[in-house]
Amino acid sequence: MIAVNARAVFSPEGPFKLTTIERRDLKPHDVLIEIKYAGICHSDIHTARGDWGPVDYPLVPGHEIAGIVAQVGADVTRYAAGDRVGVGCMVDSCRQCEPCQNGEEQYCESGNTGTYAAIDRYGQYTQGGYSTHIVVTEDFVVKIPDGIALDAAAPLLCAGITTYSPLRHWGAAPGKKVAVIGLGGLGHMAVKLAHAMGAEVTVLSQTLKKKEDGLKLGASHYYATSDAETFKKLANSFDLIINTVSAKIDINAYLSLLALDGTLVNVGAPSEPLPVQVFSLIPYRRSFAGSTIGGIRETQEMLDFCAEHRIVPEIEIISASQIDEAWERILASDVRYRFVIDIGTMENE
Amino acid sequence: MIAVNARAVFSPEGPFKLTTIERRDLKPHDVLIEIKYAGICHSDIHTARGDWGPVDYPLVPGHEIAGIVAQVGADVTRYAAGDRVGVGCMVDSCRQCEPCQNGEEQYCESGNTGTYAAIDRYGQYTQGGYSTHIVVTEDFVVKIPDGIALDAAAPLLCAGITTYSPLRHWGAAPGKKVAVIGLGGLGHMAVKLAHAMGAEVTVLSQTLKKKEDGLKLGASHYYATSDAETFKKLANSFDLIINTVSAKIDINAYLSLLALDGTLVNVGAPSEPLPVQVFSLIPYRRSFAGSTIGGIRETQEMLDFCAEHRIVPEIEIISASQIDEAWERILASDVRYRFVIDIGTMENE
Repeated sequence: MIAVNARAVFSPEGPFKLTTIERRDLKPHDVLIEIKYAGICHSDIHTARGDWGPVDYPLVPGHEIAGIVAQVGADVTRYAAGDRVGVGCMVDSCRQCEPCQNGEEQYCESGNTGTYAAIDRYGQYTQGGYSTHIVVTEDFVVKIPDGIALDAAAPLLCAGITTYSPLRHWGAAPGKKVAVIGLGGLGHMAVKLAHAMGAEVTVLSQTLKKKEDGLKLGASHYYATSDAETFKKLANSFDLIINTVSAKIDINAYLSLLALDGTLVNVGAPSEPLPVQVFSLIPYRRSFAGSTIGGIRETQEMLDFCAEHRIVPEIEIISASQIDEAWERILASDVRYRFVIDIGTMENE
Repeated sequence: MIAVNARAVFSPEGPFKLTTIERRDLKPHDVLIEIKYAGICHSDIHTARGDWGPVDYPLVPGHEIAGIVAQVGADVTRYAAGDRVGVGCMVDSCRQCEPCQNGEEQYCESGNTGTYAAIDRYGQYTQGGYSTHIVVTEDFVVKIPDGIALDAAAPLLCAGITTYSPLRHWGAAPGKKVAVIGLGGLGHMAVKLAHAMGAEVTVLSQTLKKKEDGLKLGASHYYATSDAETFKKLANSFDLIINTVSAKIDINAYLSLLALDGTLVNVGAPSEPLPVQVFSLIPYRRSFAGSTIGGIRETQEMLDFCAEHRIVPEIEIISASQIDEAWERILASDVRYRFVIDIGTMENE
């Protein structure tokens, strides 16, 4: 076992404390990564606080991981020490089922192994990226292209792929109208990516507070959903709507904005059910769908796409001692648009 | 104006009475059809009783119409007196918008003109097929192939196309697993059509009462949804589920039966909203969609498909004086599987 420093919560309420956790000794296909940066995702908070079910403590969150390969197992062929690499929301899957065979490990029939708060194939409880090092099988490690700085790369591993995958799956492209609900960590990536894919992008946000940002990020239009006129004006107009908001929304109002054969995709998961009127779907053959992250191959494709199109998230770097504060600011929607922990600050604590 | 006999309700409560209504004089592209048979659709009842909004009385329902061309307008090119023809749920649309141009008049941006209870382009209130004659523009008339008897053809114009269209749109085909919720007028057509398209068909019905029927109609499997085991056994297994039930169902239980990228399509419209848990959609990139009837070109394609595959609905012929009784039996689910009015019996009343 390899003992490494980490920031963990010891109860649903926190706070974070510096601790030591154990990473497994390298198996033949494992890669030991020295983590340089870890993004903070809203789902870190939900998971750590038990909103999505009970978890074990201490818990080290973090599934937006960017770092440098420190060491590789005997049979690793794809990575070498010094490589710039990333790890996202999953660190393993069954590799046998049809989705896995098709490179859609996120939909593994046995359930993929989450980067933290999951039991891995060795029976060990996984711990995430708020930590100095992590051991991951090479098949779940991606290369960070030279064009992307490590700090900016981190949020791409969740916020990036979570929005890239549905945009690709539902065909965001020139001639298509894409709306993004919510301009937060996921939303701002959805805007950048959909714009780079050539779609005409509209942001639907509660207020016009971030309008200037939205237009800079690549949106052509920006509407306040607090204004009932928005729903009249935009009725039946979008081919695809990406809903990044986890709070309960008036789903039928948003479905009414879809054009014929349009799809509204939730990438956030409200805990309460959304009451769908079937009459919101039928008259335009609309769909209401869900999507989660993306496969490993697609994650690599997304990183390469971002490098090619010079897309990086908007980030605010924090030190490891500021995680609690950052979480509070996320809950208050006070972040533009992603906190990234400088893991180098953990060693000095 | 052409005065014709019809059976109409004069209030939401009914009952039906013989009356005389007026059909317009033939415009150059109009076809006068002598109606031989009219199917009874559950939506006739909903509409006539005002469940979907207020309607005018007297009201003549009926949008599953099969008959013989009696006379054609001066410029009609596609039909001649004596032709066997059908009319479904719509009798006109704008013909200009993109859906209309693409042959999807059911999704006309201005709203198609319903066969009854709608105002047509001449300002006249449309009246349906429980009547001896109807006048319809030739573009909304379809040919009934020789292989299909007129009485059996009638229900194809709504129950047939309503299930054929989503089966085609979402790719029912060999290698695909299709489930049909509810074995009524629509459901039994969905089973026959999906089977003919080569899909493996499962019926999901409240009880096993109609199991023998379901298997005869083309289903390979038949499960009772009153048995909780059904949902465990069939979890994550269907590529497509056609929900023909208009009553409120436990939508999340049914969504859990969809495989990766599967779609549950409602063709019935419950009046109450269905509370969708987003977690029912996200882990398998599932979709919840709606669909309504089909375009005119597709309706013709469906009729030709039915002739080729020798598919006809299971019907029970009634006389015009039995409509009230038939409606009560439909509401009691006591029909296998579609009532068809022999319009010839109306003349003798």
